[in-house]
Amino acid sequence: MSTLEALPLTPVGSCCTPVTENVLSAEDAEAMAIAFKALGDPTRLRLLSIVAAASGEEACVCDLTEPVGLSQPTVSHHLKILMDAGYLTRSKRGTWAYYKLVPGSLDRVAALLATATA
Amino acid sequence: MSTLEALPLTPVGSCCTPVTENVLSAEDAEAMAIAFKALGDPTRLRLLSIVAAASGEEACVCDLTEPVGLSQPTVSHHLKILMDAGYLTRSKRGTWAYYKLVPGSLDRVAALLATATA
Repeated sequence: MSTLEALPLTPVGSCCTPVTENVLSAEDAEAMAIAFKALGDPTRLRLLSIVAAASGEEACVCDLTEPVGLSQPTVSHHLKILMDAGYLTRSKRGTWAYYKLVPGSLDRVAALLATATA
Repeated sequence: MSTLEALPLTPVGSCCTPVTENVLSAEDAEAMAIAFKALGDPTRLRLLSIVAAASGEEACVCDLTEPVGLSQPTVSHHLKILMDAGYLTRSKRGTWAYYKLVPGSLDRVAALLATATA
């Protein structure tokens, strides 16, 4: 049985209008900053890319510590930040936690930066 | 006469392969994290959006303090981070410094996140 945890109520990047479309409100800027701050760390970017490259875009925490060369508590801390920001979901199966990329999350955040072409 | 300062040698976002294309190397992850960390602050996102909305995508520092409600030294500090990351260039004309959006910078960073569709 799998338990899905911490699925964000508001999908990351769905909060706001793009940076260049209008002058951002303080509220939108707060929400967007969380999404970008989560990506502003090299370990978190590597963890995201490892999960994204895994089969089914899902990886066991047991396979994430060695590639980044950090302890499991440190890796879990970074994974929690990515989860809280809405990039990953976590499910527990047996002893291990599995982290899965939230479909469309990176594309939604990309759209906040891309200049409108239409 | 205008003096162009701090034009980054490597345009932001041109460093790396997208997050989901391959497992990121430590070096690429370091470079990308700088680009995202600069966006991970609500004041900096608002400053970027104000500059992007200005005529010619350029704004005087004298017009940036009031909208964000912060002192000029604080605003200048945030602008320097955006400049160092490659989103803005700065030129001095008379008494004032003018900040201009680096063309394509936001699109290049967006492309690091977007899932390949081809």
